[in-house]
Amino acid sequence: MKAELGVKNCLYPLPTVLVGTLVNGKPNYITIAHVGIMDLESVSPGMNKRHYTNAGIKATKTFSINIPSTKMVKVTDFCGLVSGRTRNKADLFKTFYGKLETAPMIEQCSINMECELVKTIDFPNHDVFIGKIINTFCDETVLTDDEVDIEKVKPILFVMNNQSYYGIGEKLAKAWSIGKELDK
Amino acid sequence: MKAELGVKNCLYPLPTVLVGTLVNGKPNYITIAHVGIMDLESVSPGMNKRHYTNAGIKATKTFSINIPSTKMVKVTDFCGLVSGRTRNKADLFKTFYGKLETAPMIEQCSINMECELVKTIDFPNHDVFIGKIINTFCDETVLTDDEVDIEKVKPILFVMNNQSYYGIGEKLAKAWSIGKELDK
Repeated sequence: MKAELGVKNCLYPLPTVLVGTLVNGKPNYITIAHVGIMDLESVSPGMNKRHYTNAGIKATKTFSINIPSTKMVKVTDFCGLVSGRTRNKADLFKTFYGKLETAPMIEQCSINMECELVKTIDFPNHDVFIGKIINTFCDETVLTDDEVDIEKVKPILFVMNNQSYYGIGEKLAKAWSIGKELDK
Repeated sequence: MKAELGVKNCLYPLPTVLVGTLVNGKPNYITIAHVGIMDLESVSPGMNKRHYTNAGIKATKTFSINIPSTKMVKVTDFCGLVSGRTRNKADLFKTFYGKLETAPMIEQCSINMECELVKTIDFPNHDVFIGKIINTFCDETVLTDDEVDIEKVKPILFVMNNQSYYGIGEKLAKAWSIGKELDK
């Protein structure tokens, strides 16, 4: 039996990231899990307009996406609880920069993508920032045969429905492959 | 040590969904994992322009997001391997409709969201369809205390880097909660 839930977003889990930008010239990081991939080179963090970070992204037209691992769950959650208006969250991490000079990245996160702002989509309460990836960094320790290994990245997955974080589970199958068994 | 990977999207895993629409009046379903949440009521599947489905979404201005469970991994992968141009993929499922008459949904998927197309973002090779959720359905069997329970939904998570599907793992912590321990 199907239950009708009304308007309820159930597109979970999504990866929890730390979005970095300069606000008033200083690095700031905020926890965001309403994200997505638009095309192969583009990502889209959706950020409530009340956040301190939004003005920084609009001013610098750059931001970074940093992927924390499960062992960073406490500090990741913390960066979603406190605002850069009242707290210097950059002190929690070691910051580095890539090609862009205004997209601070977090050394402790094993994946870092520096992005240029391509477009902002205006929702009633949210800015969705479409970023084109300019360059990606990763810890060498998360590579397997020169490819990023998600089982080593150990991202933090977010589920709004029960307001919880999860790890990634077991590998189920190869994509563009297991389905061929049905193509008889 | 950080390795530089160039332009590489590493925002994974993302939930694998089956996007439903009518194409030329007939239900069709396609596997998409480049998705995201924009604001609380909006989702954004990013779909290569060569797909058969895109014209249907543009014509009907509606689509559905159906979340298959891990036990559906084979048929889910299959729907990404074959095109609706040559194959009637709707035969693989039982279709139902909600409020919209042009957003076919899959009975076998435990979560179904019917969406109205709000805007299409034009990328060189992709259409990103921003959909506003009009109504959500779920199997009563995936509810725990009237809330959608991701551990019962068992979504299929997609990782492009190693072209693999994963299940969801263990619960790590409560969001907006565990970080409070650092707020001393």
